[in-house]
Parts: sequence; C-alpha cells; structure tokens
Amino acid sequence: MARVLTPRAEDFPRWYQDLIAKAKLADNGPVRGTMVIRPAGYAIWERMQAEMDDRIKAAGAENAYFPLFIPESYLKREAEHVEGFSPELAVVTHGGGKQLAEPIVVRPTSETVIGEFMAKWIDSYRDLPLLLNQWANVVRWELRPRIFLRTSEFLWQEGHTAHATREDARAYARKILHEAYEDLMVNVLGIPVVVGLKTSRERFAGATATYTCEGMMGDGKALQLGTSHELGQNFAKAFDISYSSAEGAREHAWTTSWGTSTRMLGGLIMCHGDDNGLRVPPRLAPVQAYVMVVKDGDGVTEAAAKLRDALRDAGVRVALDDRTDTAFGRRAVDAELRGYPVRVEVGPRDLAAGNAVVVRRTDGSKAPTPVADVVEAVLAALAADQQALHDQALAFRVSRTVEVTTLDEALEAATTGWARVPWSAVGVDGETKANGQGVTVRCLVRADGSVPDTEDEPDLTAILARAY
Amino acid sequence: MARVLTPRAEDFPRWYQDLIAKAKLADNGPVRGTMVIRPAGYAIWERMQAEMDDRIKAAGAENAYFPLFIPESYLKREAEHVEGFSPELAVVTHGGGKQLAEPIVVRPTSETVIGEFMAKWIDSYRDLPLLLNQWANVVRWELRPRIFLRTSEFLWQEGHTAHATREDARAYARKILHEAYEDLMVNVLGIPVVVGLKTSRERFAGATATYTCEGMMGDGKALQLGTSHELGQNFAKAFDISYSSAEGAREHAWTTSWGTSTRMLGGLIMCHGDDNGLRVPPRLAPVQAYVMVVKDGDGVTEAAAKLRDALRDAGVRVALDDRTDTAFGRRAVDAELRGYPVRVEVGPRDLAAGNAVVVRRTDGSKAPTPVADVVEAVLAALAADQQALHDQALAFRVSRTVEVTTLDEALEAATTGWARVPWSAVGVDGETKANGQGVTVRCLVRADGSVPDTEDEPDLTAILARAY
Repeated sequence: MARVLTPRAEDFPRWYQDLIAKAKLADNGPVRGTMVIRPAGYAIWERMQAEMDDRIKAAGAENAYFPLFIPESYLKREAEHVEGFSPELAVVTHGGGKQLAEPIVVRPTSETVIGEFMAKWIDSYRDLPLLLNQWANVVRWELRPRIFLRTSEFLWQEGHTAHATREDARAYARKILHEAYEDLMVNVLGIPVVVGLKTSRERFAGATATYTCEGMMGDGKALQLGTSHELGQNFAKAFDISYSSAEGAREHAWTTSWGTSTRMLGGLIMCHGDDNGLRVPPRLAPVQAYVMVVKDGDGVTEAAAKLRDALRDAGVRVALDDRTDTAFGRRAVDAELRGYPVRVEVGPRDLAAGNAVVVRRTDGSKAPTPVADVVEAVLAALAADQQALHDQALAFRVSRTVEVTTLDEALEAATTGWARVPWSAVGVDGETKANGQGVTVRCLVRADGSVPDTEDEPDLTAILARAY
Repeated sequence: MARVLTPRAEDFPRWYQDLIAKAKLADNGPVRGTMVIRPAGYAIWERMQAEMDDRIKAAGAENAYFPLFIPESYLKREAEHVEGFSPELAVVTHGGGKQLAEPIVVRPTSETVIGEFMAKWIDSYRDLPLLLNQWANVVRWELRPRIFLRTSEFLWQEGHTAHATREDARAYARKILHEAYEDLMVNVLGIPVVVGLKTSRERFAGATATYTCEGMMGDGKALQLGTSHELGQNFAKAFDISYSSAEGAREHAWTTSWGTSTRMLGGLIMCHGDDNGLRVPPRLAPVQAYVMVVKDGDGVTEAAAKLRDALRDAGVRVALDDRTDTAFGRRAVDAELRGYPVRVEVGPRDLAAGNAVVVRRTDGSKAPTPVADVVEAVLAALAADQQALHDQALAFRVSRTVEVTTLDEALEAATTGWARVPWSAVGVDGETKANGQGVTVRCLVRADGSVPDTEDEPDLTAILARAY
C-alpha cells in the first residue's frame, strides 16, 4: 500500500496532523485556534458523549445549561481562579450595536456562574447533594493551538456539585474519576490511563485537590484526559453557597468540578493510531463493520446489502460502501484511515467461492470467510480487538515506563517515556527543575496504585513525563 | 388545591413566567437576556434533541461542529444577511489579553462559516448533496428577552446543505420541514402546527424562500416553531461553493438551511400548559409515570418500588418519589407543575384495599386501580393522552381561527386568534398595514393546505395573527 501518512517514527506531530486531515476528522477554523469537527470526527465524539452521559447520569448527576456569557466581575471573586484564567479570556465589549457597561467574558469554565445559581437554589441540607453536569463549548485563548489537544474553543462536559461535608465532596469527585472517567477511558476508549493526584503546582485554579487520568501517547508523552477537582469551600465562600444544617446552623457547602473534552479525540488518535491511520476500539466506533462492494456484478451488491442487514440485526453498527464508481483501492485506504474496526469485502471472485473477506483493522489480518459465518466472525473480531487495542497500549506504556530512584534518572527517562520515581526524591524544588527541562509531574500515586488524598502522604510515587 | 400560578385567563404572560419559575424549568442568567436551563427543563430539551436528531439522521444529514467565533468580514459577504443580523451581534474585541486585529462575531447563525468550508470540501458533483447539521448555542442580542422565546443566547440545531440543482435543494428543505419538523411537532410535541411559506417580508435574511411551522398558543397568538430555508445561490456565490458537473462545467451549488431551538420549550408550555402547570405529552416526557409514596408504613414504599420496577420493565420512563419527609400535598403540586403525564399514588389506605391511584395529568382524573392492573392502566393512559393533548390543541386552534375575506376582518379576528384570509386581499400593502397594528402574516398556504413555492401562486390563503 502506498504511503498515505508521514510515518509516526519519522515525525509524530506531522503524522498526527496528516491523519486528522486525511481521515477528514477536523479542520482549522478561520479564527486562530478554533476548529471545525467534521462528520467523521464528530461521530466519534457523539459516541464518547453518549457513553459518558450514561455514566454521569448513573452517578446521579442531572444535565443543565448555564450561559456562555459571564460578567467579568464573577471571575474576580475567587483569587486563584481569576489569576489562572485571565491570560486566556475572550472578552465581549459590544452587544446589539452598543458598547457594554460591563465587559462580558466568554466562559473558560463555569464554576463562577454555576456557583451563583447554586447559592440561589440551595437552602437546606435537604437540597444537598446538588449534582449538575453540562455539555457545552468553552473558550480559552490559545497561543500554540493544536487540533483536539489545545484549541481556543473546545467542547466538553463540566460537572459541578455541592455537598454538605468535605468527605461527601471528596467521595463524589472520586466516584466520577473512577466510575465515569477511568471506566470510559479504559473500557471504551481502550486507553490504559494512570489515575492519580496532581501536585499543588499542577492543580486547577481554585481547587484544593485535582485528580487526573493520564494516558501515554504513541511517542511516549503523556496526555491529561480528564480531571476531577475538590474545590473545598473556596467557591462556596466566594459565592455564598450555604445551607442550614439539620441542627439549624448555617454552613458553607463543599463543591467539586470535573471535566472531559474533545481532547479525548486527540488522545484516541495518538494512543491507537498507526502508520495507516486511526484505529477505533469497537465499543467506541460509530461504524464497527464497514461492508465494501469490491466490484459490482453477479449479485455482489445484493449480497453485500444482505450482509449489512444481517450485521445490523445482530446489533452491529454497520455501513455499506457500494460506491463502485470510486476505485476500490482508494476506498480501502480511506477505510484504513478512518479506522473502522472490521471491513467486510465482498467481491465477485470470493463470492463465487461462497466467501467474503473479513479484514481486521487492529492487526491487518484478512480472512476469507463463508458468507454464512461472517456475522459470527465479525462479532468475534469486535470482542477480541477491543481487548487487543487496550493490551497493545498497556504493553507499550509498560515498555516505556522506567522505575528510578533519583530526579536525574527520571529526567533522563522522560526523554523517551514515563519515569516512576519516589516523590520524596523530587519535591517542590525538583518539580521546578523538571519544569525547566520541559518535564512535568503528571501525577502522584500510592504504592498500591491507588490515589492519594494529599501530596504529603508518605511513600508516594511521582510519574514524570513530557506532556501535551 | 390552592392557587399556585397566576391563572392563564387573568394574565397569560405572568402565568408563563410563574410556571417556568415554579416548575423550576429555567432562570434568568446574570447577563441580560441569557438563561439558565434547569434540570427539569433541560431533560425535556434532551428528549426533543434525541427525537429530532433521529429524524435528521434518517433524512441523511450528518452532525458536525463549526466554530462559535466568526470573522466579522464573513458576515459582510452576503448583503441581506449582514443587514439582517448586524443589530443583534455580540462582538469580541479582546482575546488572550490583547486587542484583536479583526473583531470577531459570536455566531448568530452559521451560514457564513459553513459556506466557507463547503467551498473547501466540495469539488465535484460526486460530493453533492452535502448534508450537515450541528447542535450548538448561538447569540442574538435581545432588547426584550423572554425565557425560551427570545433570549440573547439559545440552543438549537442548524442544518446546512448544498445541492447540485434548485430542485434538489427545494426538495430537501421541504423534506426536513415535513419529515423532521412537522412530524416531531405534531406527533411528539402534540402541537398541531400549520406549515406554510413565509412572505418575502418575513423570510430569513439571505433566503429565497422560507418555510415555517406555526403553532397556536393558549392565548390565541402564533409562535414560529421552526423554519427551513432555500438560500438559492446567494451564499454559494458569496463563498464560491461550486462543483464540476458530470459534463465538466463549473457550477455554483444551491444551498439550504433550517433550524429549531429551545424556543420549542416555550411553545410546549404555552400550547399545553394549564392553570396547574405544564402538561407534557407522553411521547416527549422524560418522566412518563411518577410513582409517589403518599405516606410510608405497611410496605407502601416497597410496593411503590415494585411498581416503579414493573413500569420500567414495561418500557415506561418512570421515577419514584419516596420523599415522605416532605408533605404529600406539596409534592403533588410540584408533580402537577412539572406535568408528568401519569402519577401513580401509593398510600397505606388504598394499598390495604389492593389498590394504587392512577392520576392522569391531561384531564385530572383519579382512578383507584388494582395494583396488578397498574402497568396496563398506565400504558393505556399514555397512549390516550398523547392523542388527547394534540386533539385539545387542535380543537382550540380551530375554535380560534376565523375564515374571512377582507383585511379589516382579518385584523379584527387577529385580536383573539388567527385569521385565514385570501392573500390577494392582503398583499404587500396590506401586510404593511397589519404590521402597523402588531399583526403579521404568519404564512401562506394553498387551498388544499399544502405549501406553496412562491407567494405569487394564485388562490393562496394568508394566516394573520399576533405572534411571539
């Protein structure tokens, strides 16, 4: 097959850009840093949304929608928050043909406006917990944009909850982290993320603790795929989110927030893509089986349509490609680029022998299969390849992760992958040094792999890496 | 039952506001004209979205996402379009802490930016039709905002398509009008809309034809619930959306656009609401059956939970209210306000007799029903009340619509409802006169009720009304 993309080993960033363009996943927008998500990319995002939405609702949160426009004064009420976001804001100064009395900020995140309404809606302990989520676009001005990874506008879900106690807030932030984020990423996206605590330097502006899911990309770098924050009482005090307890006292609530975004599309590409294009895990794929008419004649198109119907009846998300006026080779290259998990190729010669060819995107294998057995073969391939993609990614992560004991060793290891190093060997000074060399502490984990409550716990392991 | 809302007959606009506040559907946002859609309102919107999305995909369109920010210069390329939208624009002048070289407009609609990308993506006739849809927020500065009806930011879907011929474009604009919009509104929302052609004065800025779905609200006014536009070659020429035909000639495409928005929530309230609150048609309702524990004791909560499970197993969207620490009367009032189609009340006294009470929101009837028969009774009520709500709304529309022959009679009739009058008796001058009295031509229809192609066809009927 002719070379379609710049090989990953030659130039990984270029490969990433090529893939997005040639698979028609997205385009750059006209305003610097914005993006157009094309149908092939958006269909994957819709599947991510549906799977995530199910998990968020199962965790008890309800969807709502808060305004895009936030008064500038709101941002200023929480000191760390305004400091963190000020350099990234887009500001509306004119509306309806007139200059506005107060400038309006286009939401970079909605903690402040949601805080304002939580304060209105919460009266007594009976109103807690208040568990909200919204699907929305947000804007953070980007000087060095990269599609899906850093864009001036992106799509995301942001959850915001209020609780009666710190313990309740912590438990919920962790529930979302594990039951929604980690579960989706590992079991649907097939990305074996490491889940841990951010250092105080890396945490969200205004949070008291930030938990993160970190994935290893195909070049050994890390990508933060989702975060869940304990906000303590910082926003509750800034917006007076308070409740009367069962005992009648007035108490400030404890809040959390958590988000995942279209950045997951970038993570998917960089975790599973290969030199022929994207590979989409079957549970995620909008099209799981792509039935192709190789060449028409002798009832080929009819046979392909029958296979399409049989696969659909078996619960497979399936599409039929009968565009025989376009060369088969070109369509096959496009199918590879798009990463459909399984192709079913139906051509006159194979069909005459009673066969169709089942092609698996994960390993490229091509198996002539009796037409009557195709559905079963496809179902088996989909089940196996969901696991195979995850296991490949895990094996790669393990192969590129080095266990070391000193900061210098960790910085060396971070040139090609991840370093696991005792947090006590890094500390705040070591973190500053690492940052100076383009390496960050991605997260802290306990010896047993679980997520610490604070960075002051003993015997923590720090994961150091370069990151997107 | 104590008076919860201002009665509709006393003050319809006040009733509308009261209902939205007390049913906790939405709130005003901090920036004038924006809104917060609360979980109870958003859950209905999600159901509208799901039903609409199914229909749009069935019509062959694919979802995509285009940027919120549009260069001001794009808006200016189509003369009527910029003139139509200029007074309503929100303008971003600062980003990332700096003044921008070119001001950026927050999208009021996406014809222009999508036109730019259609031009890039379309090369030959094989690329047509190009059928795109997006779910997004848009901003149109509102001086007299009203929640759901006119807000400075609202949520919507906007479809944008490109075709090889005028006939193809027209057929698709009408396909969406009937198969997506009219079908959803009539058969899911239960709103018996009239579908027709807008006059040239009322059509969309830049369109050559605008088709509309008009519903009658509970005060006899009209609400435009969705529109579908033929854009001719106006945008294709402004953005150079062209293709090479099978014969090798370079031709401009013909484009359409079409949209429905959170305004449908306002239409739902004003079409079906009564003095006790909202009434949601069963096919639309996020919660179709609301099982209430009247008072705990003697296995009541267990029996209610069993009924919840049995209803869920029967495919009913169901919720259980076992908050017995809140007075039953208050919860029942809230359930009326929210408009759940059916309530199943489970209390100790009825349960001792083997019964639960099935309460239908549509007519307020309360039927003690043997527990074993509740599922069947609920299913029957849901089916009947979907039709009943539609038929009530249709009967009301018919009762408030007057057939007249002169403009003056039409203007008189429009003080209480709709007037049907020969378009030849109105004309452009009559339309100006009507507008001066707060009455608009909602749409034009043919004698057989079908939708005309142009306002110049003979024997058209104009529908005149006051409108939101």
